[in-house]
Amino acid sequence: MPSNLQCLLDNRPQGEATAGNFKFVTTETPPLADGQVLVRHHYLSLDPYMRGRMSETKSYAAPHPVGTVMIGGTAGEVVESRHASFTPGDKVAGMGGWQQWSVVDAGRPGALRKVDTTRVPLSHYLGAVGMPGITAWYGLVKVLEARAGQTIVVSAASGAVGSAVGVLAKAHGCRVVGMAGGPEKCRYVTGELGFDACVDYRPHADALSLARALKEACPDGIDGVFENVGGLVMDAAMLRMNPFSRIAVCGMIASYDGQPVPMAYPQLILANRMRIEAFIVSEHMEVWSQAQRELAELVGSGKFRPRESVAQSLESAPEAFLGLLKGRNFGKQLVKLI
Amino acid sequence: MPSNLQCLLDNRPQGEATAGNFKFVTTETPPLADGQVLVRHHYLSLDPYMRGRMSETKSYAAPHPVGTVMIGGTAGEVVESRHASFTPGDKVAGMGGWQQWSVVDAGRPGALRKVDTTRVPLSHYLGAVGMPGITAWYGLVKVLEARAGQTIVVSAASGAVGSAVGVLAKAHGCRVVGMAGGPEKCRYVTGELGFDACVDYRPHADALSLARALKEACPDGIDGVFENVGGLVMDAAMLRMNPFSRIAVCGMIASYDGQPVPMAYPQLILANRMRIEAFIVSEHMEVWSQAQRELAELVGSGKFRPRESVAQSLESAPEAFLGLLKGRNFGKQLVKLI
Repeated sequence: MPSNLQCLLDNRPQGEATAGNFKFVTTETPPLADGQVLVRHHYLSLDPYMRGRMSETKSYAAPHPVGTVMIGGTAGEVVESRHASFTPGDKVAGMGGWQQWSVVDAGRPGALRKVDTTRVPLSHYLGAVGMPGITAWYGLVKVLEARAGQTIVVSAASGAVGSAVGVLAKAHGCRVVGMAGGPEKCRYVTGELGFDACVDYRPHADALSLARALKEACPDGIDGVFENVGGLVMDAAMLRMNPFSRIAVCGMIASYDGQPVPMAYPQLILANRMRIEAFIVSEHMEVWSQAQRELAELVGSGKFRPRESVAQSLESAPEAFLGLLKGRNFGKQLVKLI
Repeated sequence: MPSNLQCLLDNRPQGEATAGNFKFVTTETPPLADGQVLVRHHYLSLDPYMRGRMSETKSYAAPHPVGTVMIGGTAGEVVESRHASFTPGDKVAGMGGWQQWSVVDAGRPGALRKVDTTRVPLSHYLGAVGMPGITAWYGLVKVLEARAGQTIVVSAASGAVGSAVGVLAKAHGCRVVGMAGGPEKCRYVTGELGFDACVDYRPHADALSLARALKEACPDGIDGVFENVGGLVMDAAMLRMNPFSRIAVCGMIASYDGQPVPMAYPQLILANRMRIEAFIVSEHMEVWSQAQRELAELVGSGKFRPRESVAQSLESAPEAFLGLLKGRNFGKQLVKLI
């Protein structure tokens, strides 16, 4: 059985997460029981939600247990199988965690999905055509119920989820305005992803200043916000919302480390008869195949060329993850494991 | 034509509203044109939304024009009619404003409604069986979609809207917990209105303390909040919300005077996959007759005995209104004009 490098949650962050919260160990993968499959991970996905699991704070999921392998999406290849539906060589995606190999009970619903890499590269099943892309689809289609002609604003627009929101919203006939950190990300968002405009939030010290910049980019106001950030970025968007507008809350990365970040203008919810609704895509798996089909078509046809930040080797995962929390990645953050 | 005492908005509040923002004048009611009706107002309704109209700040309605009669709901009697559907002696409700008489274009949709005072006293058509009651019905039934067995929390529970929310929610099989200011109001909420519990928010200096009190009253957490107040009261409720819970935002009286009051814990929206949705009942008039029927039955049968605070004569309207904004009223605030 192969030797398996694993990254564990060693202790919980006090305030900001640090590399010291993680620990590496090497184990042997156990022999397969009936119904199990041995998967070699090619890619590990790093996602902001992992920060929430590291803390003990109440969130939508239970805290990740200290001393166990960090959870995470993985894409790889079946190496050995004792399950009739899987054969060595199959490309698969699952939740293998921060490790090089995993032994999977392949019969458990959703544990392991075979993926088709003829038109879509394997790594995209962790991004544009995987959980982040389907998150984008659900928030845009089911929560915002975006319609042609509406103005949709997307925060963290160059990220794995944000980029997919933008491309999908354009395909649905919306005007799409991104918010991102720095001119390089903004150029990518308008140039490569095809957003109508992108506002760099970095030069703005307060929500009023950022709202003025948004006003230029959204001359007809904002009908829907796909929110990944919260804090100042969300406050600024709220100052430009139209009556009956909506915010789909997908993430609030601004408050993942440390103290809660208040919402400055909740009275605007009332003034604009808004709806603010949060969701977790894993609670809406019924949309998976429809969403994945639409996303695979956009990627396979070349209309959506998602960017990836790829860190090399599992040892670099903690550093890459901490960078993601600070917005240092560019597009989907992955770790390449082989 | 009768002489008509009127109360005008004289100037806009700087911060807190004061009596100096209003001015009284006496005019003559004009002679009736075809299709018009002369109404003598018996009651004027005072409601928190009026504070919003006094300011220039963007809200869901245009600011009230300075120098004109303050808007407001009224209930009274037709004295003279040049409209085929109305006869002197008819009891009617409308939006006659802060004045003793009004001349109404009775054909304008919604301008004047005949009301049946055989089982329901006239004044209740400005409260439990009028706009506040229908506001309660819409928020509970259409926004919260409250179901039997759920725990519903209502802020400003002894007020015109809050009391109706509670009685309706009990009729729908919910556990209902009020929040109100002071032990006397809380006793009324549990004793006369039949709420399961009521939390006095006054002794609590912060949201965490108030949330602890709510925890005792809501052992199974909170499934829906009918929010009239905002600020600390809303923050405390948010700390006790269940997954997939909702907040119907009907009012945010905490921020009507002066500065916006932030929301302390917006990350809980995400953690609990909440939906927060604001509404204005006048945009949903399609529910009026169904809601009014249900409310009239509760009042007519004696199951709902709404309390009223009645100020005497139009001259006392500004003082009564300012008291309402500070929670000095007890139940529906009215002004008796004759």
